Parts: sequence; C-alpha cells; structure tokens
Amino acid sequence: MTVSRVDVVAAARRIDGRIRRTPVLRVTPTLTFKLELLQHVGSFKPRGAFNRLLSAKEQGALTGQGIVAASGGNAGLAAAYAARELGVPARIFVPETAPAPKVARLRTLDADVVQVGSEYAEAYEAAMSACEESGALLVHAFDQPEVVAGQGTLGLELLDQVDGFDTVLVAVGGGGLIAGIATALEDRARVIGVEPELAPTLHRALEAGEPVDVRVGGLAADSHGARRLGSLAFEAARRYDFGSVLVAEEMIVAARNELWHEYHLAVEHGAAVAYAALSTGAYQPVPGERVIVIICGANTDPTTLA
Amino acid sequence: MTVSRVDVVAAARRIDGRIRRTPVLRVTPTLTFKLELLQHVGSFKPRGAFNRLLSAKEQGALTGQGIVAASGGNAGLAAAYAARELGVPARIFVPETAPAPKVARLRTLDADVVQVGSEYAEAYEAAMSACEESGALLVHAFDQPEVVAGQGTLGLELLDQVDGFDTVLVAVGGGGLIAGIATALEDRARVIGVEPELAPTLHRALEAGEPVDVRVGGLAADSHGARRLGSLAFEAARRYDFGSVLVAEEMIVAARNELWHEYHLAVEHGAAVAYAALSTGAYQPVPGERVIVIICGANTDPTTLA
Ligand SMILES: Cc1ncc(COP(=O)(O)O)c(C=O)c1O
Ligand SMILES: Cc1ncc(COP(=O)(O)O)c(C=O)c1O
Repeated sequence: MTVSRVDVVAAARRIDGRIRRTPVLRVTPTLTFKLELLQHVGSFKPRGAFNRLLSAKEQGALTGQGIVAASGGNAGLAAAYAARELGVPARIFVPETAPAPKVARLRTLDADVVQVGSEYAEAYEAAMSACEESGALLVHAFDQPEVVAGQGTLGLELLDQVDGFDTVLVAVGGGGLIAGIATALEDRARVIGVEPELAPTLHRALEAGEPVDVRVGGLAADSHGARRLGSLAFEAARRYDFGSVLVAEEMIVAARNELWHEYHLAVEHGAAVAYAALSTGAYQPVPGERVIVIICGANTDPTTLA
Repeated sequence: MTVSRVDVVAAARRIDGRIRRTPVLRVTPTLTFKLELLQHVGSFKPRGAFNRLLSAKEQGALTGQGIVAASGGNAGLAAAYAARELGVPARIFVPETAPAPKVARLRTLDADVVQVGSEYAEAYEAAMSACEESGALLVHAFDQPEVVAGQGTLGLELLDQVDGFDTVLVAVGGGGLIAGIATALEDRARVIGVEPELAPTLHRALEAGEPVDVRVGGLAADSHGARRLGSLAFEAARRYDFGSVLVAEEMIVAARNELWHEYHLAVEHGAAVAYAALSTGAYQPVPGERVIVIICGANTDPTTLA
C-alpha cells in the first residue's frame, strides 16, 4: 500500500470546501510560516479525517454506524468534527486518564466519548473491536493511505501559495503529516522532520531500519505521542529520503514563547517543534535557503503563555 | 489638510519591507478576516508610525533627537519599534498609572519611557513640550496625515488579496485606521466603523457635527481610549460617508472568546470589536454581501482567554 501524488491531488478535490485553505505569513524573504493552526478544530488533522470519511462514503463504506477513532488529541477532535459535518455519529475512545477538558471538548463536537483502560494502546484495541462489531469506520490518526493523502493537501497548497521554496520543516509524530507533504512535493523541495528528543519515532525507525516502539514523553506528548512511526511514513521516508532533527524540551518551550511574543501566534507545544529546529539552530539553513515552517496546532491552554 | 489615495499609495511604497504584509483568512465564501494582529508588535500601528518617520526622514526632519509619542498602548509600541528599526531614539510618555508590563514592553524596544501625570492628556502635553524643546518628531496615535496614510496601506493590501468584497468592518478609536482604509478604498467598497458603546467617539462626532470629547472606558479602553475622534477621521467620515455601529461590552467579550475558540486567534478586546458587530448581529449583512473584518491587535494577556 503506497500513497502517490495522484492520491493527494484527488484528496484535495475531495475535501475542497470542507477545510480551510490556511494562509501563509512571509516572515522574512527566506522564511515563511504556514498557519495551519488556523485550520478547523485547530490542527491539520481534519484534512486526513475528511479524506478518510469522504473516500469511504464514495465507496458506500460510511454507514449509519459512523466512525470510530482512538485519540483525545487533535486526531480525535478532527475525526469528531468531520463526522459531525458529514452527519454521521462518532465514537471516540480515550484512556480513563484523558484530561477532562479534552473529553468535554470532544463532547461539544457531539462525539460519544468512551473512556477505557489506562493508556492509548488499550483505547486503540477497544476502538478496533468496536469497528469489527459494529461496522463503523476506523479513522486512524496517521497510518491510513487516505489520512496521509489528506494531510498531503497542505503540501499542494504550499506550491500554490509560496513562490519558490527549498525546504519545509515538519513536526513528526506518527508521520502522517510529513509523509503526506513529501508525497505532495516529490522532488520540488526538501522535507525535513523535526521531533522532540523525548519522542523520536522517525529517528529511531531510520536507525533500526523499521518502525520500532519508542518511549515517548515530554511537553509535546499530546501531539507527538505516537509510540512508533507509521508504516506509510516509514515507506515515504525511504522513498523521499527524509530524516529528522531532534530538539530538546527547553528549545520547544523557547520556540513556543517566541511564536507568541514575536509573531502573536498561540500554539501548542507540538506545533512549536518545527520552529524550534530553526530558532535554536538545530537546523541551520545555508545562506539564501528559503524555508517554510509548518505551524500545525493551536490546541493549547493559553494561560501557559503568559 | 486632507489625505488622498495618492498619499496612501506613496505610503505603501515608503514602508514596503518595513511592515509585514499580513495574510487574510477566508472563513466562508462571504467572510474574510484580515489578520493584522500578526503585524510587527501586534497591531496595524507600525504602518502609520513608519510612514510618519520615513516621511520626516525624506525631508530631513528626523534628527538625532529621534521621536516622541504619548501612548502606553499599541501606538507607543509601534512608535518605539519603528524608531528602533530606523536607528533613532524614542521617548514615550505615559501616565504614572500605566501598567508595569506595558512600560516593561516599551523598554524592551529600547524606548526611554517617561511617566508623568495621572492621565493621557497630561502625558500628551508633556510629549508636545518635549518636542518643542528638543526638536524631536512627534508621532501621533491617529491624527497626522502620514499616520492616516500609513494605516491606509492595509486597505490597499485588501484590494490585492481579496477578490471582490462589499464591506469592511473596522474598529474605531481616534479614527486613524478607518480614515486610512476609507481613503485607500474610495468607492470600491463600503467601510463601516464599529465602536464600543463605552467609547463612541465617531458616533458622537457625527451626532454633534464635529469631534467632541467623550467619556471613554470599558474593556477595550486600551486601544479605544482616544477621548475624541481625530479631525482627519472626521473629515474622512464626511467625505466617504462612513458611520459606526455600537457594540456592548459583553458582545466584545463573546466575540473575543469566539475568535479564540473557533478561529484560534488570541486577540485583545479592541481587536474583537469589529467582529462583535457581525457575530452578535449589530451589523447584519444582506444575503451574499462579502464582508471583511479587520482583526487588528494581539496585545492581550492570554491568561484571560481560558
Ligand atoms: C499539532 C500536531 N503536530 C504534529 C503532529 C504529528 O502528526 P503526525 O502523527 O501525522 O506525524 C500532531 C499529531 O497529532 C499534532 O497534533
Ligand atoms: C487594536 C486596536 N484596534 C483599534 C484601534 C483604534 O485605532 P484608531 O485610533 O486608528 O481608530 C487601536 C488604537 O490603538 C488599536 O490598538
């Protein structure tokens, strides 16, 4: 199962009108931010979720049973939002430890929230069983072809919005976003992953020669909480030859503060990861290199920005 | 003294490269946000400040004495920022009651902050005297032709960025922004002012037939704290025939919360005023009317957004 650029182009047509075409901010002649934090429900995830749901609908596989997902984070919000927009029920599985505000937020999107077990692996198992029993559609957070193709639509927008660029810095969790963008761009620009040192799924997968389980933690665990890289992302990393740079926790905090104080963008820690590579020098562009940083999520507690 | 569209076009050329061309977000087919909160130092005010400073520089009137302004708000930040960028000293007069974080912020921009008197009128008097004594350049918050022309560059950007629109909703304090935008647009679109009920400077000026002193207060007093409309704004209101709608305090609060929760934009109360007219129905577009809302300031305490 591979995802091709044709799939991304088809996804863009399919989800057109459902997602926001998020703007770009030209920061300097060589630095541009893609403001994907302004997407519906505050992250890029609705791109993949809508493509998954609408693809299934085209094939008659989106029934009155609706959809199921396992995530209390942005993937869960996106699945619930897309389901509500398309008028089907959503059941979202989260661990019993999921923070109350996240559960409440999912409920405001009309999702049926099921709390089970003490970690995501258990919630995911329960979600899979629910799908098998009910015939509901599973919406994965990153490792489904329709999800990867949907995230890739962000890459197509870049080609349209930014006049010439060399490098795109992308945060990596399970790798759906970076895989999609690399597939959209092919060899038009270089894609570079950025990961928290405490959640190096892509880094470890490349070292091991295959996706492996990684202990994940840290401030960005909300969005970078995938325990291993998706198989589609690993394949994309091989095909398009991308790797990742690692950033320390305090770099992420500093980048997030800078995004707020200098650029007036209130972002979650996971969405400061890509910028951290640049602002702290973990990634150093050569002179004249035109860089795009994907600012990918707004779901943060603003009281932590003061 | 009037400001013409030619002045706005000249201002755009003059300040090019100094200000950010802020992006627009297409919210629905008939609603667009101009994301001017992403401007340097978090508001549109650097447009006017740079035009004032650079115009003076062209005429040899920007000396080593630098500039003087009276404002602890966005106008003061903008004047300090522009002065620092152009390498001249800035002296900013604020009342002794100015909040410590604002004073601190001005100092991080290398401004010499002078605290005098208990309200802005006194700070303004002191600023004027300082200019007369020292030959420094006074940068007014709204009522100078170069300032109005500078703010108007935002209107030119709209013509370039948005394909056809009917109405622009603009927050009004002293009226520099709305005057500039109306001058830039002439009859290409309708401009509508929005003011807090507790700071109705334009409303009262139109009632009285001239700018009159108004008691101002409320949550947006930071940015809508001008006690009377500027004379240039009054003239523009007559020439381009714009008025204002009023919004209550709780409408401003609701609009600001909606901008955060639905659109992931952390804005100051003054920057939620224009959207409040729309979100609460104080201004009701006719079906199909294409509306732009100027989201004009980010200088807020994020802890108040939770
Ligand atoms: C804000 C944010 N950034 C990055 C990621 C990582 O995305 P992916 O799992 O597609 O690599 C996520 C995933 O939830 C996210 O929410
Ligand atoms: C965020 C914001 N909005 C609106 C205004 C009002 O602008 P004007 O005085 O040009 O009418 C100001 C003025 O400081 C402001 O800072």
